Amino acid sequence: MYRMNSDYTEGCLKAVLNKLIETNMDQTNGYGEDPYTYEAKELVKKTFACPDALVQFLIGGTQANFVLICSALRPHQAVIATNLSHIATHEAGAIEHTGHKVLEQPSDDGKLTAEQVEAAYQTYALDPNRPHWAQPKLVYVSQPTETGSLYSKKELNDIYKVCQEHGLYLYVDGARLAYAFGSEENDLAIEDLAKTCDAFYAGGTKCGLLFGEAMVIINDKLKEDFFSIAKQNGGILAKGRLLGVQFGEVFRDGLYFEIGKKACSQAARIRKAIEERGIKLVTYTPTNQIFIDITKEQYEKLSTEFALSHTGYLPNGNYSVRICTSWATKDEEVEKIIQMIKEL
Amino acid sequence: MYRMNSDYTEGCLKAVLNKLIETNMDQTNGYGEDPYTYEAKELVKKTFACPDALVQFLIGGTQANFVLICSALRPHQAVIATNLSHIATHEAGAIEHTGHKVLEQPSDDGKLTAEQVEAAYQTYALDPNRPHWAQPKLVYVSQPTETGSLYSKKELNDIYKVCQEHGLYLYVDGARLAYAFGSEENDLAIEDLAKTCDAFYAGGTKCGLLFGEAMVIINDKLKEDFFSIAKQNGGILAKGRLLGVQFGEVFRDGLYFEIGKKACSQAARIRKAIEERGIKLVTYTPTNQIFIDITKEQYEKLSTEFALSHTGYLPNGNYSVRICTSWATKDEEVEKIIQMIKEL
Amino acid sequence: MYRMNSDYTEGCLKAVLNKLIETNMDQTNGYGEDPYTYEAKELVKKTFACPDALVQFLIGGTQANFVLICSALRPHQAVIATNLSHIATHEAGAIEHTGHKVLEQPSDDGKLTAEQVEAAYQTYALDPNRPHWAQPKLVYVSQPTETGSLYSKKELNDIYKVCQEHGLYLYVDGARLAYAFGSEENDLAIEDLAKTCDAFYAGGTKCGLLFGEAMVIINDKLKEDFFSIAKQNGGILAKGRLLGVQFGEVFRDGLYFEIGKKACSQAARIRKAIEERGIKLVTYTPTNQIFIDITKEQYEKLSTEFALSHTGYLPNGNYSVRICTSWATKDEEVEKIIQMIKEL
Amino acid sequence: MYRMNSDYTEGCLKAVLNKLIETNMDQTNGYGEDPYTYEAKELVKKTFACPDALVQFLIGGTQANFVLICSALRPHQAVIATNLSHIATHEAGAIEHTGHKVLEQPSDDGKLTAEQVEAAYQTYALDPNRPHWAQPKLVYVSQPTETGSLYSKKELNDIYKVCQEHGLYLYVDGARLAYAFGSEENDLAIEDLAKTCDAFYAGGTKCGLLFGEAMVIINDKLKEDFFSIAKQNGGILAKGRLLGVQFGEVFRDGLYFEIGKKACSQAARIRKAIEERGIKLVTYTPTNQIFIDITKEQYEKLSTEFALSHTGYLPNGNYSVRICTSWATKDEEVEKIIQMIKEL
Repeated sequence: MYRMNSDYTEGCLKAVLNKLIETNMDQTNGYGEDPYTYEAKELVKKTFACPDALVQFLIGGTQANFVLICSALRPHQAVIATNLSHIATHEAGAIEHTGHKVLEQPSDDGKLTAEQVEAAYQTYALDPNRPHWAQPKLVYVSQPTETGSLYSKKELNDIYKVCQEHGLYLYVDGARLAYAFGSEENDLAIEDLAKTCDAFYAGGTKCGLLFGEAMVIINDKLKEDFFSIAKQNGGILAKGRLLGVQFGEVFRDGLYFEIGKKACSQAARIRKAIEERGIKLVTYTPTNQIFIDITKEQYEKLSTEFALSHTGYLPNGNYSVRICTSWATKDEEVEKIIQMIKEL
Repeated sequence: MYRMNSDYTEGCLKAVLNKLIETNMDQTNGYGEDPYTYEAKELVKKTFACPDALVQFLIGGTQANFVLICSALRPHQAVIATNLSHIATHEAGAIEHTGHKVLEQPSDDGKLTAEQVEAAYQTYALDPNRPHWAQPKLVYVSQPTETGSLYSKKELNDIYKVCQEHGLYLYVDGARLAYAFGSEENDLAIEDLAKTCDAFYAGGTKCGLLFGEAMVIINDKLKEDFFSIAKQNGGILAKGRLLGVQFGEVFRDGLYFEIGKKACSQAARIRKAIEERGIKLVTYTPTNQIFIDITKEQYEKLSTEFALSHTGYLPNGNYSVRICTSWATKDEEVEKIIQMIKEL
Repeated sequence: MYRMNSDYTEGCLKAVLNKLIETNMDQTNGYGEDPYTYEAKELVKKTFACPDALVQFLIGGTQANFVLICSALRPHQAVIATNLSHIATHEAGAIEHTGHKVLEQPSDDGKLTAEQVEAAYQTYALDPNRPHWAQPKLVYVSQPTETGSLYSKKELNDIYKVCQEHGLYLYVDGARLAYAFGSEENDLAIEDLAKTCDAFYAGGTKCGLLFGEAMVIINDKLKEDFFSIAKQNGGILAKGRLLGVQFGEVFRDGLYFEIGKKACSQAARIRKAIEERGIKLVTYTPTNQIFIDITKEQYEKLSTEFALSHTGYLPNGNYSVRICTSWATKDEEVEKIIQMIKEL
Repeated sequence: MYRMNSDYTEGCLKAVLNKLIETNMDQTNGYGEDPYTYEAKELVKKTFACPDALVQFLIGGTQANFVLICSALRPHQAVIATNLSHIATHEAGAIEHTGHKVLEQPSDDGKLTAEQVEAAYQTYALDPNRPHWAQPKLVYVSQPTETGSLYSKKELNDIYKVCQEHGLYLYVDGARLAYAFGSEENDLAIEDLAKTCDAFYAGGTKCGLLFGEAMVIINDKLKEDFFSIAKQNGGILAKGRLLGVQFGEVFRDGLYFEIGKKACSQAARIRKAIEERGIKLVTYTPTNQIFIDITKEQYEKLSTEFALSHTGYLPNGNYSVRICTSWATKDEEVEKIIQMIKEL
């Protein structure tokens, strides 16, 4: 029995684990005031070519999102995001819990468009009663998206341009960022991400670490006292060096991007088999997640060997099923599922 | 120049004003611990046939909504409402500010349906990951709605039935409640409202008072410490008797319903003139608000004599314009606007 | 039976009532977009010599406090105030409800000292772990205080100086401001208040209006989108002109200060009688509130004719009892209570 | 150079690390739906003799505190705790951020008394204006306290009795719980803790795990939807099994209590040396933390070999310095510091 239902079914990369073992009994200060964290922060800034950024390691993705958002916004301000975005769905209302409305925009493929941002902003700006409305102030996008799709460089730039015109912050949720940069279809240079947003996080939990997310804040306005607001929200790990140790490993020599590339190429092989077999994709995804349109019987057949995510029912009565590769996916698993797909 | 742009352009009913004058120098305790408030609470309970209800006078509608909702819900719980509802639009994100998500359901006429409530609930209940979602717990409807439409007795009952099946609270925003009961098309008995929801408020601000809303809580689970939560949110007036004095006047002898009926009949006359002139309604409304589809030129012509609300642009390029009657609308104003409509 | 238990036992000043009657059927826009409000805002700015201030009328004192504070602070920031302050006691945790800690400083007479502010700030600033603490950012004082005491010009200036040195905002709760300026011992010029703080409100509820507080924001940093945050918190009255009409009357020709002076002089007469009779004051108060130390029997005797506030038990077993004058106190009431005090 | 400045300077126990290594590439479901977590929850319930408790593993202590408290309380409710408690000091206002006031009670030794709880409750309950106050509803104590002191069985029982009489919840922060049960002076049986409170957490971060806290909810009223509220606050780890794996190791065979005992006995040896040398304790502490009263020179001398926490200045001008043992403290470190203390 194999698991391809999510990209967080295993522990962590061997290199990460080894470093945790190696440093386990080292004595350091807490809360990120340690050499491992200092080094890792520098590596992150170097990797993303943003020497003046503020880097803060946090523990998980929901936390990263609401801490950044509640730190950035005043009480009446709101977030523009798609209805499929993580903050609109699987965070149990975390953004609203910190006091802020999510202005949900409809999306089929998980991507927000510059036109939607412009329209959402204008709906507010042109209303003579706008002081009676929640004020759009931050735009949230995921790269890659929750549904596996990918923004092109131009798409991200167009959104950022609209944001800058209207004084909106652009925040990129990079829970699976390794698999964005690892996609064959990616055209955004690693060093360009920080130039096209105000803040982003590079996810660790789904990209080879035990846990942890690297928040990178570019815009000076969003930096002040970020640590304290993270602390207030439970975002500061006592043994902060655990995050430094882990992120240091994946950003020292590009391991983060290697594993992303591998997982995307494995997913591409599976996708090719799906297409060859004539199975429909729910939506086209060039990253590590694949959503397929199969019958109950087909799902059950695959389930004899693979744990997969049944993510919902399709209009044709079929199942939408997610297949997920990750840093941990073995080639034998890929070959096995390809074989089973052929025989569906 | 006349104003028909809203139903809060004047002060208050003569009877209300006279009572305020008469009692002005009476000395009473504060915060609603006075004979006027005690009497008014009894009158409200008698009027709506709910002797065991908790009545608490509050100051305004936005406040009434968020105080009731934040008192009723635990942190992860959410509200089901239409995308046109007051809490989703003109309250500057007040519900989210208290920590709760509004699950917006699309609506053309401002009304929520029992089917939408059922579907919204099932979306949550059937999801295997539902502990990761905000939990629907309270259903918000306005009677009449923000767009002037009216729930029938059956429609409200159907919604309430769904709520009871799933343990959801039904809360009715009655900012314009006088104009619901005053509509010729209303088929809900006054004494039936409290039987078909868990809480509602009877609006004063738009129905003849200077200000004030009468919150009526039927469900025992929602009563505990409501005063304190209102106090915490600025909802308790120091000179609470001002609310008691005002509500006493409109609920002692049915004045609340008289003025509702008059305003609806005036609106019906205007609507008839609109239909006879061949002007389209944006949506059919049997209460005190009329939304018409006219050209910019027609709007400007009407605007020479009447302040009206230009509420938006229609797909055909025309203006959506609101005409509003109220307890204060004079027959001469009605005749004047009818004359102008004929000549458009 | 007379009431001297609080300064909100009656309705409003005759001039205010007359203006409300006179303007009752005028038609205006809502939410403060009306000529009465425009004029009243100008009168407030002129009165307090702050032509560039932002004036926003709000409905009540608890609301004024939490709206200003939650608008001013970021999530991790806190308020310095005395343990006797209104925000620390009778607001049901309103400040905390908006997310902010109140750093309570002990006080006997209700006044905060510049030394306390300095110490509270240094406790934070000198702590190497200060990013783990709530950050002091706003200082709250009441003028006069909840216990009737009064800051001298020097005391306020000293606090403001400490605030400015450390980047703290100074906010003055003026719920009873008329009775501060009306005190014989006041040495702060009306036009100096706005020079010695970042924001204050001039209370209406306790100073001759039916209800209403005039928030005056001096510091530009606190002005942005204040209306929206007030709206979100239920602070914007639909019939906003009611506030404009009322504040216009008391600030057009100095009525606000006249009534303050009269009430303070009445209180001074009562205090003199108390002292002559040999009754102890709980604390010395030069404004409109007097707190006396009397036995249960003395309290009961006074209570045969006067409703007074029994505010607590004193270490000697006696009652602490509040006597309150106001804009509405009649000379006959003053004479009556003086007579009763003499005979205690 | 050694670190005795805190009990979170190293990684984790060897047994815990080994199990993490061993299970690293196992594939499991996320969010705690895995066999390791299931087993660990059972072990916790067995250890603390509370078979019907709800166990939820969380990530850190600040998070554990605010998630439990915001899940337990309605908006107007408050927490009774000492001024030295973690929630009143080093959590950056986290409790207030979730909307709740902390009613701070003065304490010298970090312990709250049943008398203080009773008094705090009565201050509220006896006030005729209590609906205007934040309502005490939950009592927070730490076992052992932040300052190293320890509640006796009787002290805890007395507090719990007061809580039960007044409908207050008692919540025990057990960040260092291993060191409470490990103290020679402890008289509370492990199986008695759950009988003497409504909820507690057994800390992992400071007691041998990389991170993690085991929340144990006894009172049924506090169980409902706790997972969702934890999720909303970032408390649910994607790879939840990491918590299960770790807690399983320390609770399977009593390792948790072994390491607590060892660290307390090491601290006792150090304390004995301090007393023999004639150095004053800031406060007496029978657990793993020792606070000593030494001169700047003495501190600097110790600092040549040991990183210790300078936690503040004493009235005599001396330094208050914390020495902390933990699960990781080696005997050679203990001997070394004893030697240095002798030579101070």
